[in-house]
Amino acid sequence: MRTRPLKVALLGCGVVGSEVARIMTTHADDLTARIGAPVELAGVAVRRPSKVRDGIDPALVTTDATALLKRGDIDVAIEVIGGIEPARTLITTAFEHGISVVSANKALLAQDGAALHAAAEAAGLDLYYEAAVAGAIPLVRPMRESLAGDKINRVMGIVNGTTNFILDKMDSTGAGYQEALDEATALGYAEADPTADVEGYDAAAKAAILAGIAFHTRVRLDDVYREGMTEVSAADFASAKRMGCTIKLLAILERAADGESVTARVHPAMIPLTHPLASVREAYNAVFVEAEAAGRLMFYGPGAGGAPTASAVLGDLVAVCRNKLAEAKGPGESAYTQLPVSPMGDVVTRYHISLDVADKPGVLAQVATTFAEHGVSIDTVRQQGKDGEASLVVVTHRAPDAALSGTVEALRKLDTVRGVASIMRVEGE
Amino acid sequence: MRTRPLKVALLGCGVVGSEVARIMTTHADDLTARIGAPVELAGVAVRRPSKVRDGIDPALVTTDATALLKRGDIDVAIEVIGGIEPARTLITTAFEHGISVVSANKALLAQDGAALHAAAEAAGLDLYYEAAVAGAIPLVRPMRESLAGDKINRVMGIVNGTTNFILDKMDSTGAGYQEALDEATALGYAEADPTADVEGYDAAAKAAILAGIAFHTRVRLDDVYREGMTEVSAADFASAKRMGCTIKLLAILERAADGESVTARVHPAMIPLTHPLASVREAYNAVFVEAEAAGRLMFYGPGAGGAPTASAVLGDLVAVCRNKLAEAKGPGESAYTQLPVSPMGDVVTRYHISLDVADKPGVLAQVATTFAEHGVSIDTVRQQGKDGEASLVVVTHRAPDAALSGTVEALRKLDTVRGVASIMRVEGE
Repeated sequence: MRTRPLKVALLGCGVVGSEVARIMTTHADDLTARIGAPVELAGVAVRRPSKVRDGIDPALVTTDATALLKRGDIDVAIEVIGGIEPARTLITTAFEHGISVVSANKALLAQDGAALHAAAEAAGLDLYYEAAVAGAIPLVRPMRESLAGDKINRVMGIVNGTTNFILDKMDSTGAGYQEALDEATALGYAEADPTADVEGYDAAAKAAILAGIAFHTRVRLDDVYREGMTEVSAADFASAKRMGCTIKLLAILERAADGESVTARVHPAMIPLTHPLASVREAYNAVFVEAEAAGRLMFYGPGAGGAPTASAVLGDLVAVCRNKLAEAKGPGESAYTQLPVSPMGDVVTRYHISLDVADKPGVLAQVATTFAEHGVSIDTVRQQGKDGEASLVVVTHRAPDAALSGTVEALRKLDTVRGVASIMRVEGE
Repeated sequence: MRTRPLKVALLGCGVVGSEVARIMTTHADDLTARIGAPVELAGVAVRRPSKVRDGIDPALVTTDATALLKRGDIDVAIEVIGGIEPARTLITTAFEHGISVVSANKALLAQDGAALHAAAEAAGLDLYYEAAVAGAIPLVRPMRESLAGDKINRVMGIVNGTTNFILDKMDSTGAGYQEALDEATALGYAEADPTADVEGYDAAAKAAILAGIAFHTRVRLDDVYREGMTEVSAADFASAKRMGCTIKLLAILERAADGESVTARVHPAMIPLTHPLASVREAYNAVFVEAEAAGRLMFYGPGAGGAPTASAVLGDLVAVCRNKLAEAKGPGESAYTQLPVSPMGDVVTRYHISLDVADKPGVLAQVATTFAEHGVSIDTVRQQGKDGEASLVVVTHRAPDAALSGTVEALRKLDTVRGVASIMRVEGE
């Protein structure tokens, strides 16, 4: 075994970074045995050096991350700063100085993954990022390596813990969105500004990364259709229950039937209670992967948090250090298929639509005609009426999303339709 | 990209082997792109060359596996023969001739894993075996690599599809063991001689392999405590239901509280319906992993079958080929902790015990005293009596298995206890 240690620069020392530092210290012997050489925390770059950091030698702390990367003895950099800058520049600097990188930065990888991968490849270095998607759940490595001999056709996952916590609360207590959000905030599951979570931006970034891995193609953040879950109501949950469903915010990545294009989207959807994703509670994450040979796989675990994310970072650190010792590099970006990403209108899915309608004869016929005119086949209709008011709940068969939204637009124009109370996609047959 | 192909010898061409050959042919371009060089099926060693094999060039087929390995141009051997011999000798021969190996052979790895890993290590070659445990489910790689920076404390899994199918049938239909087994046999889920599955031998082999990976120690097949599930009755399922539980055949691997030893066992157990493993239906497998930093993870998917197992084999093939091209090798056996494996008596668990007792005053006191004398604390007791006969159902708190089995032995000797109707461990709090 080599005795000269591999040197690690830790960029960022917040919730995740401090856990990484703690585990590197407390489990140093295990890491040494698993890597085949000692690994040493050689420097910690932070914004606020005055903050007390338990267990971290103050002599290692610096505010000058760039100087740390340039000093010449660093083997691996761990980037747990988050956000675009300065993370992007620092990762690029690392590659320029022969330093492999482990990153937990989903926003950056979703936005600039291609350029960063290219920089790593050109320098013959590793860029690992298991922690960027679904926290502790091994997902990037299984999809990139275990399924490397298979063809992934579909990925459907709960990749945001905050929104799953809120939706689970709404489901189990009958609470409305605001009430459930307030509880999530009080318990620390939601941030003061929950926009990135509840509007689906966080999930969309993960969806872009996963789609790239699943389909060996490049999927940009802008390619991901995104709908948040702030409009999901207690009434929607009641409707879902009547259908034997619950509601989850899902990231769904699909290969088209002809294999020539892919789609990527994030939106709330009803899924049957019998689907494995339906029983994912609280802030847990889970990702369902359908591959041609492997069949249906699911990966489940904590999608966020300091220690779980640190676990994923350290797994990558061990791999990257092993590669360094072997003078090899792990698999880089695989984007050889270059499949186009189709717009949301091309996605084939099902709709659950609640309409407020006039309670008079002929309404159902008129509604049914509208569906037929748009080529959308109806699966079930439930009609409920009282006091001249009535509601129609229509569940469709699978149809292109464009045809479904065209139908809804036409329904809104019917005299007999007083309003469209809710529209939700139905997934997971 | 390199144009000279990597050459693969396929040893065995049964259900899994023929799927491997099929995918290597139909997905050759994808494999080339992912490996970085073409990969070529250079020979297929079989027992019965006369059997027609769709899509395999007859010129590749040979009955002399040894000569195939010795001919000098093979880079990787895929061993999908199963069983101990000739698989063991062939794998050893492969290593002697500079050939890395992908194997799906759980029996061999559980029995001779240490020697085979040592041979691979000495030759600087890879021995990959994702397919040996839980078929298509990425489990070996995530545990060995993704969690390489974490400390796994507990693994609990359903790793045998046949028995899960039988138990699921018993649970959902109220059928007895024999009836459910007959259905499994008729549907092809159980073999004509189901011993290896129903007596837990198959699960024990996987448990030994998983324990080795989880705890970085060597666990021999003989170290794994094993109980089959042929005694599980419809009455046990009724009892389980009353407790809000179901019954699964589980492989459970635990690190002792002091971290100084481990245990490995396979037996049927009651688990709460709220536990993620409770909802694993039909012949699916799932493995729950608890790690210090990552928390609770679960991996779910098809645990057997030609295509799923081939998916795992091909994932390994891609990795091993990539290592060959990089003139590197992947992680080998990690057994540096050398922890002792404690006997079943040291396992701390809970019991569910049904007793047939005399329906007279003082029986409960006598039974309770027996538990107390053995240091076993009672969680709940349910008493049911009619016509001079009565039953007592006792659920204990956690206690060493030795104390629990000592209690049961003492209970059997009590005059007032007419019989011990069933004993089952309760897991997954």
